Amino acid sequence: MDRYLVVSSDGHIGLRAPDYRPYVEAKYRAAFDEALPIQIDATRRMSDYFLITEINEEWRHGRDYELSGAWDPVARDKVLDGDGIAAEVLFPDGVTEMNAPPFGAGFTMRPDGASAELMWAGCDAHNRFCAEFVQTAPERRIGLACIPIYWDVALAVKKTEEARASGLRGVLLPPMWGSFDAYHHPKYDPFWATCQDLEMPVHFHSGPAPMEQFFGPLPPTDRDSVPPGAVGSYLMEVHLWLTRPLTFMLWGGVFTRFPKLKVAITEGTSAWVPDYLDRLEFHYAKTRESQKLGDFRGHLAESPADTFRKNVMIGASCMSRREAEARHAIGVGNMMWGSDYPHPEGSWPMTRQQQLDALHGVPDAELEALLGGNAVAFYGLDAGKLAPLAARIGPDKAGFQKARVAAA
Amino acid sequence: MDRYLVVSSDGHIGLRAPDYRPYVEAKYRAAFDEALPIQIDATRRMSDYFLITEINEEWRHGRDYELSGAWDPVARDKVLDGDGIAAEVLFPDGVTEMNAPPFGAGFTMRPDGASAELMWAGCDAHNRFCAEFVQTAPERRIGLACIPIYWDVALAVKKTEEARASGLRGVLLPPMWGSFDAYHHPKYDPFWATCQDLEMPVHFHSGPAPMEQFFGPLPPTDRDSVPPGAVGSYLMEVHLWLTRPLTFMLWGGVFTRFPKLKVAITEGTSAWVPDYLDRLEFHYAKTRESQKLGDFRGHLAESPADTFRKNVMIGASCMSRREAEARHAIGVGNMMWGSDYPHPEGSWPMTRQQQLDALHGVPDAELEALLGGNAVAFYGLDAGKLAPLAARIGPDKAGFQKARVAAA
Repeated sequence: MDRYLVVSSDGHIGLRAPDYRPYVEAKYRAAFDEALPIQIDATRRMSDYFLITEINEEWRHGRDYELSGAWDPVARDKVLDGDGIAAEVLFPDGVTEMNAPPFGAGFTMRPDGASAELMWAGCDAHNRFCAEFVQTAPERRIGLACIPIYWDVALAVKKTEEARASGLRGVLLPPMWGSFDAYHHPKYDPFWATCQDLEMPVHFHSGPAPMEQFFGPLPPTDRDSVPPGAVGSYLMEVHLWLTRPLTFMLWGGVFTRFPKLKVAITEGTSAWVPDYLDRLEFHYAKTRESQKLGDFRGHLAESPADTFRKNVMIGASCMSRREAEARHAIGVGNMMWGSDYPHPEGSWPMTRQQQLDALHGVPDAELEALLGGNAVAFYGLDAGKLAPLAARIGPDKAGFQKARVAAA
Repeated sequence: MDRYLVVSSDGHIGLRAPDYRPYVEAKYRAAFDEALPIQIDATRRMSDYFLITEINEEWRHGRDYELSGAWDPVARDKVLDGDGIAAEVLFPDGVTEMNAPPFGAGFTMRPDGASAELMWAGCDAHNRFCAEFVQTAPERRIGLACIPIYWDVALAVKKTEEARASGLRGVLLPPMWGSFDAYHHPKYDPFWATCQDLEMPVHFHSGPAPMEQFFGPLPPTDRDSVPPGAVGSYLMEVHLWLTRPLTFMLWGGVFTRFPKLKVAITEGTSAWVPDYLDRLEFHYAKTRESQKLGDFRGHLAESPADTFRKNVMIGASCMSRREAEARHAIGVGNMMWGSDYPHPEGSWPMTRQQQLDALHGVPDAELEALLGGNAVAFYGLDAGKLAPLAARIGPDKAGFQKARVAAA
């Protein structure tokens, strides 16, 4: 084949806020109607302070059809074909700030102060929509179910089984647990067992953080209520909030008990990985500094750095040149390119160029792995089924050769 | 001079818990008497799960006199002389887990659920003891005042002025602010102004973290209530909780408004610095990834990575060989060696060997800076006054030469 099979590890779908209504169970529709204007207002006010409206609006300008791929499968496939993407992972939150599921479901799923019943209703609505969306082209779409696991593990297990039965192929978990038990707690074991048995990789996606610590009371009442440096501090920390769940799972021995459980950490770049692995190894190799502290290795079958290599995959959205150059320290087998469509920070509509800029000169076998092969293995995709599509739309290998020569 | 002037950036003092009583204001002594057994019991139960009792007790065995340097100035000077340390910075928490000030004062000073009045009473008690301790050898002792600033900034200013007047030369702030305003909030400006004007460097010291997230409800009721991996997860994260205040201060423009304000970040190693500086610079140099987000640079006079070089010092306790080798990436001018006496993870009683192991082969001028020169400049110490002491007790330069030759 003279083209690459590309799988995007990071795509987003979501309905316009009012359009979630028919997907919400009937008994929650009155609550939905009541919450809708509040949600829209809060989203708008938050985005006034968090996003540069002009840049976001300029980016959207004249792209209404292409951006409707957030909920319209026909528009989406047109974009995917143009981008050379054969298959993709589908997270919630379609176009930034405009397509979040109701009742705090979706990306963040913060538990404190939330109603478990309503958040589950919001997740159910999104998961139904997602399953329906997947069915429009099951071989191209890896749909994820939103599962807020901290309230009721048995219920989370049941919802995950239902999601699998409906054709979804992974779960998205909240990266923050508020005052609930963190992810090293054994109470979650039945859930990890289910994900392992059903071959549903667990996902954490960048973005959530304790926003009120950066921005003050939310949503902001006026510009003066937001302290200077809110966004800068947020950017410095966002990957830390993303990787916390994995830290607790690795040290908690989750993968010792469930060695086939898989985790993807998405859109936090992969730049943090070498330092993270160093620190896992450093603390595992018992050091003088840790001698006074209690045992924390007896329940682990191996170094958590070794576990990382086997069980963890990085959704390296818009993988940068810098990340590509550091790929051996990060792990060529642990990185999956992603487009992040339809977010403005994603590669679309310049995906081809983004890939060439970042990946030119990477040997062919490694390129194949980074662009799609790793994702095929991680999600158990049927590469044979995707091959004809890739042969038609995939980026041509000759282009990468030319870019390599041009850069040299 | 054929010996180095050594300043330890990390020492700890503290009274045995009951001995804080006379330092507590009379009207809080009834509360002190009531809280004392509860505090002792909670500390013991926490240490049962957090510390390896045997290792800590073995370490203490036969060292009662030397460890009494936590509160006895004569014992302390004997230890310092033997260690070749001319001067040192004095944090609270003497011997690990045994000498914390009352009412949650000292190291962590977590605000949520605490009584502001009682915590201030505890801080006052420690600060009085510390000022008294400093007076036993003012040229050798850099005493820090515990200042929980989030409740009442005006009161924090007043307490800092009093601390300065009593001979203390820096402040220790809580690294976690709970539900209170983070350190980029302009409400803290009068406090930063005071620290700048009085030349009182601001300190954050490693250790505090949201312990209940790792260990479950505190203090632990029994061994089964502590999830596996609690200590490992804590170790992975502890430097992140330490550096958060600095992140908010840098992005908040605190040093643009108070360019002479100084901050020390102590006992979190210095290994995190190169990555941290990279990320500061990366986010400051406006990248594609940040384009959709709000402005976060307009209020900064320069890149926060440049600010770091000028205003921040690392208390690199027991600086490792690895840190010494990375000193140019970390910043030779930003690192201060420290002993961490009397903590078991500190260099005492093997300080000389620790210094030789870590620092052999480092050029003389850099060694001078790392062992003491940087601290002299940062704290404005009188090097002339300390010189005779250093000439008597300091580590001999010839020893480092020999170690260099032996290692080569």
